[in-house]
Amino acid sequence: MQTAVEELEAKGKAAKAASRRLASLSTEVKNQALLNIAEDLVSREQEVLAANEQDYGEAQAAGMTAAMLDRLLLTSERLRGMATDVRTVAAFPDPVGESFDMCTRPNGLLVGKRRVPIGVIGAIYESRPNVTVDISALCLKSGNAVLLRGGKETLRSNAILAKVIREASSRAGVPADAVQFIESPDRALVAQMLRMRGTIDLLIPRGGAELITMVAENASMPVLTGGVGVCHPSSDRAADIEKATAIAYNAKVQRPTVCNALDTLLVHADIAERCLPQIAREWAQAGVEMHCDQRALAILEAIPSLNPVPSTEEDWGREFLALIAAIKVVDSLDQALAHIEGYGSGHSEAIVTEDYSAAMRFLNEVDAACVYVNASTRFTDGGQFGLGAEVGISTQKLHARGPMGLKELTSYKWTILGSGQIRS
Amino acid sequence: MQTAVEELEAKGKAAKAASRRLASLSTEVKNQALLNIAEDLVSREQEVLAANEQDYGEAQAAGMTAAMLDRLLLTSERLRGMATDVRTVAAFPDPVGESFDMCTRPNGLLVGKRRVPIGVIGAIYESRPNVTVDISALCLKSGNAVLLRGGKETLRSNAILAKVIREASSRAGVPADAVQFIESPDRALVAQMLRMRGTIDLLIPRGGAELITMVAENASMPVLTGGVGVCHPSSDRAADIEKATAIAYNAKVQRPTVCNALDTLLVHADIAERCLPQIAREWAQAGVEMHCDQRALAILEAIPSLNPVPSTEEDWGREFLALIAAIKVVDSLDQALAHIEGYGSGHSEAIVTEDYSAAMRFLNEVDAACVYVNASTRFTDGGQFGLGAEVGISTQKLHARGPMGLKELTSYKWTILGSGQIRS
Repeated sequence: MQTAVEELEAKGKAAKAASRRLASLSTEVKNQALLNIAEDLVSREQEVLAANEQDYGEAQAAGMTAAMLDRLLLTSERLRGMATDVRTVAAFPDPVGESFDMCTRPNGLLVGKRRVPIGVIGAIYESRPNVTVDISALCLKSGNAVLLRGGKETLRSNAILAKVIREASSRAGVPADAVQFIESPDRALVAQMLRMRGTIDLLIPRGGAELITMVAENASMPVLTGGVGVCHPSSDRAADIEKATAIAYNAKVQRPTVCNALDTLLVHADIAERCLPQIAREWAQAGVEMHCDQRALAILEAIPSLNPVPSTEEDWGREFLALIAAIKVVDSLDQALAHIEGYGSGHSEAIVTEDYSAAMRFLNEVDAACVYVNASTRFTDGGQFGLGAEVGISTQKLHARGPMGLKELTSYKWTILGSGQIRS
Repeated sequence: MQTAVEELEAKGKAAKAASRRLASLSTEVKNQALLNIAEDLVSREQEVLAANEQDYGEAQAAGMTAAMLDRLLLTSERLRGMATDVRTVAAFPDPVGESFDMCTRPNGLLVGKRRVPIGVIGAIYESRPNVTVDISALCLKSGNAVLLRGGKETLRSNAILAKVIREASSRAGVPADAVQFIESPDRALVAQMLRMRGTIDLLIPRGGAELITMVAENASMPVLTGGVGVCHPSSDRAADIEKATAIAYNAKVQRPTVCNALDTLLVHADIAERCLPQIAREWAQAGVEMHCDQRALAILEAIPSLNPVPSTEEDWGREFLALIAAIKVVDSLDQALAHIEGYGSGHSEAIVTEDYSAAMRFLNEVDAACVYVNASTRFTDGGQFGLGAEVGISTQKLHARGPMGLKELTSYKWTILGSGQIRS
C-alpha cells in the first residue's frame, strides 16, 4: 500500500509531467475547461453538497464556532457564485505567450522575453472550500499545474470539488493530472510539501498569519505570501474634514473583515477636535468599537453614546478584521510616519491631506505595497486596480507586491533568434 | 563583550535603518559615492594589498590550490579593474523612481507603480574579494543596504574593502551603515543570517552549487539564486554545418569556465558523420577533452589525434567549467528535447537548424531561462542582452529569470492618487 508521503510524491510527479503539456495548451482549450468546471459545479451540486454536509456535521459535532462553520458551508447559491467566478476567470485574457522587451542587438540577435507558466504551484490553505476552485481556476488559466492541500475540516468537500474540476477539465483536453488533491489528512505532509523543491516551483499559503509565516519560513522553494494588512489611514493637519470622515468610515465600515480595512486611525492634533467627533459619531452609529489613546479619549469621552475605551499597547499594529478601530492623535506628519513604520504590515496606507508637500512626503516615504493620497485603503484589490482576476495581495517585495493578477502566476523565458552569431 | 550573533543583529538593524534613508537618496549622491569608491580603491591600494597579502600567505600555508589562490589574489591591476567596474555601474541609469503601468481608473483614481529599492540585501559569498565591491556597488546604485558575509579565507581583504567602500560612500552623503560587513568567521552566523527574515529582505548566495542549494533550501526570506548552467547546444538534422561548428567551438572554447559554456553537444544522427568530425577537429586543436557516447565514439575514434573517451552516466547533466565536452548522438528532435529536459539545469539551451518548425518547437518546448536558435549560448549575459550592469544570471522562475540587471534589485509600490474616493 502507498504511504501518504509516497502518494504526495506521486501526485507531485504527475503534476510536473502535466505542467509540461499545460504550458503549450491553447487559450481555447483552457477556457473550455473553465467553462466545463463552471457547468459541473452546478450540475453536480448534489454530490458536492452531500460531501459538504458530512464535513459540516463532523465539524459541528466537534464544536466548531458558528463563524467557522459558516466558512466551510456550501450551498446551492454559493456553488453558483463559485461557478460565476470561474466563468469570470475564463473571460480574462490569457497571460501566457505574451512577448515583451524585444529588441534587436547590434550583432543582429533578436532578444526578448516570452511569458510562460511557472510550472507546478503548491497551495496550502484552510477551511473555505471555495479556495479549491478558485486556485485551480487561476492556475489552469495561467497554464500551471496545481497540487492542493486543504484543511482537514473540509477534506470531503475539497476532494469532491477537485474531482469535479479534474473531470470537467480533462473533458476539454486538459490533462487531468494538472489538478492534484492530497487526500490524506496526515499533518506531516505539509512539512514534506515544503521540502519538494524540485517538484513544486512556487508555494502559495492561504489562511491565517500563523500558517503564512510557517510556510514562508520553512519552505525550500519560493513562496508568494500576502494577507495580513494593518492599515493606518491618517488625517493630516491639512486634511479636508469631509474627505477624512468619508474615508475613515468607508475604510472601517464598508467591509471590516478584510485585510485592506482600517485598523488604526491616526489624526493630527491640530484637527483632532474638529475631525474626531465627526468620524466617531458615524462610526458609533455603525457599531464601531473605539480603542483610543489618551488624547483621543479626552475628546471623545465627552460625547454621549460613543463609549470609547482606552487603548492598550496591543491595539497598535493589530489587524482587527472586525468593527473595532484604534485611534491615535499625532503631533506631526513625522510622528504619523514613524507610527506606520513601527506598526504597519506594509499592506495599504493612506493620508488625507490638501497639503501637496505632505502628500508627496507620505507617498515617497511610506514603505507599503499600496500608498494612497485622499482615497480609501479599501481600493487595494486586483479588480479595482484594473488587473482582472485577483490571485491575492502580496506583502512581500519580490516577484509581486500588492494586488496580483494572473500575470503574477507566470514567469518568462528569454528567446534569442540568431543567424549563426558567436560571441567574440 | 558583543557576541558574534549580537554583532550580526546589530549590523542588520543598522543596515535596515540606513536602507530607509538610502531609498530616497538622489541619483547624484549615489553616483558620487560610486565614483569615490572607484577612486579610493586605487588610492588606498597599499592598505588593501597588505591585507590581501596576509590572506594569501595564510591560504598558501594552509595548502590551498593554485587555482583558488589565484581567485583570492588582488593586484594593482585587479584593483584598477574593480574601480573601472564601479565607474561603469555609476554610469548606468538609476532604476529607482521609475513610474510605470499608470492609468486613471473609471472612478478617477490615478493608479500606478513606482520602482523602489528592496531594502536590505544579504550576500553570502566565497573566495573572490571582488564580490565585496561588485555587490556593494550594485546595491548602492539600486538604493539597497547590504549585509556582506564573505569567505573566511579572504576575511582581511573583504574587511578592508568594506571599510574603503563605507568611508568613500559616506563622504558623498550615503549613510555609512548602508554597507555592513560581518567580521566574525563563525560559521554559525550563516545559519543565523538565514533566519533574519524581518531584517534581510532578500538573500543572494554567490559561489558553488552547494552553497546556493543550502541557502535556497534553508533561508526564511526570498532568495535570488543562479549559477549552475548545464548547456546543450544541439545540432538538428537540418543544421547548417558551418554554423553548428562555429557555435559549438564558441560555446565550448571561448570561455570554458563560465556557466553559459557548452557542456553536452547533442548531434542528430543524420548529420553526425559530417558534422562531428569537423567540430571535434577544431575542439581537439583547442585542447578539448571529449566524452562520447557509443555512436559518437565510433565516428571519432577513427580520426587521428582526437583521443575521444567513452562517456559515463556522470557526464550527462554535468557542468564541466573546463575544456571538457560530452557528446551524444540523438535520433530525433524529441530525443534531444527529452535529454535537455532530463539533464538540463534550466540555464541556456540552443538549437542549430535551418528547419523553421524544429526551431519553433525548440523555442516553445524547452523550459530554460534562455532558449536560442542559431546562436551561441555564450550570449547569456546582462551586457549582451542590453541590460547594462549584470547582477547575475537567475535560474529560478520567480522575480527574475536569466540575466538580471539593476532593475531586478528593485521592487515596486503601488501609488494611488485620489480626491476623496471611497469604495462602494
